[in-house]
Amino acid sequence: MEFFEVIHTQRSIRRFKPDVVPEELLWEMLDAAIRGPSGSNSQPWRWIVVRDAAKRKEIAQAVSAWMATRQDRPALRPEGAQEPDASKRRTAQAAADFFADVSQAPVLVIPCLYQLTSPLGDAQHLLAGTSIYGAVQNMMLAARAQGLGTTLMTFQRGIEDTLRTLLRLPLDATPACVVPLGYPAEGQRFGPVTRKPVETVVYWDDWGRAKGR
Amino acid sequence: MEFFEVIHTQRSIRRFKPDVVPEELLWEMLDAAIRGPSGSNSQPWRWIVVRDAAKRKEIAQAVSAWMATRQDRPALRPEGAQEPDASKRRTAQAAADFFADVSQAPVLVIPCLYQLTSPLGDAQHLLAGTSIYGAVQNMMLAARAQGLGTTLMTFQRGIEDTLRTLLRLPLDATPACVVPLGYPAEGQRFGPVTRKPVETVVYWDDWGRAKGR
Repeated sequence: MEFFEVIHTQRSIRRFKPDVVPEELLWEMLDAAIRGPSGSNSQPWRWIVVRDAAKRKEIAQAVSAWMATRQDRPALRPEGAQEPDASKRRTAQAAADFFADVSQAPVLVIPCLYQLTSPLGDAQHLLAGTSIYGAVQNMMLAARAQGLGTTLMTFQRGIEDTLRTLLRLPLDATPACVVPLGYPAEGQRFGPVTRKPVETVVYWDDWGRAKGR
Repeated sequence: MEFFEVIHTQRSIRRFKPDVVPEELLWEMLDAAIRGPSGSNSQPWRWIVVRDAAKRKEIAQAVSAWMATRQDRPALRPEGAQEPDASKRRTAQAAADFFADVSQAPVLVIPCLYQLTSPLGDAQHLLAGTSIYGAVQNMMLAARAQGLGTTLMTFQRGIEDTLRTLLRLPLDATPACVVPLGYPAEGQRFGPVTRKPVETVVYWDDWGRAKGR
């Protein structure tokens, strides 16, 4: 696929076919991931691909239990009483449906920061993100280029104990996010995303100095 | 360009021609950036494009002053006495040369987290990175697709006061990184990056369970 077509049609997919994803597509996707940047090319990462149905189910149950304790997430209020925008309501509903059982995705990829070294040595700090999330984006773009849907999730923060036990994570590994993936379900399509116009979020030489394109 | 060609030839460029970068290329690049993911599509960002020569020079001087105080960065020891790998030595030398005057790049893009909201509300925390660094990677890939070189740098953490004053950043804006860019200098080429083999950093269903491709 042409590069800019991938960029402009990659969007979150949260409903998947149960079909098995061919291993070669996963390798292509992961090989794209590791081309991403990291501080001093340290590549401080491991990528865990979870396909095992029992493990995905256990993760899904932990996510449900965690979500039940939370009040702060818009996706938990899909009725959207205060949400006038139909597109946002649909997104919130899709997110809530998926949160209810993330094992609907046939694959969960869990990128972990691993043995992060100085000067970006704190795996909980923003700057550690420069050594993993660019690679994650490569992976999600490469998935879309191969017809696979993904969505970037951060529920690992709520179920870290479960993940550590279930996947036997060592202490110097930190799950950075979770990327469910699979073939998009019927009716789920790649396509343009909704964003604020670029001219409104770009400033030139000085904060607040916007200009037309 | 074909998507996987971009992914597999995007690499750090640290020496640039002084040539002006056409504004339309910058817009294409920034419009690719904002297609990236953010928590609940909150798009908590502003992108500052610094082309002004005096401001770039002031940033470069602040970087030099900060680097002079640091002992912890490999790039500061380009002599590479303990570094047996010639490729790594060259990379370290190029990084040191560029750190000596980052205003060699005709453009510095400074992506800022802005008005980050709950549940990922701490702009200093790893998770905030999920709402900016994917977009930064989109930008760097889009630059490469247009023949522009970039490199992801984190020196903003050492010169934040200078950036705040010079660019008049509000308190709820946090510079997340700095991306210098321009046309690659003579002899600087896009091409494959050096990475550990993908089979060695991917585990299947359990920590440590690697397998061949």
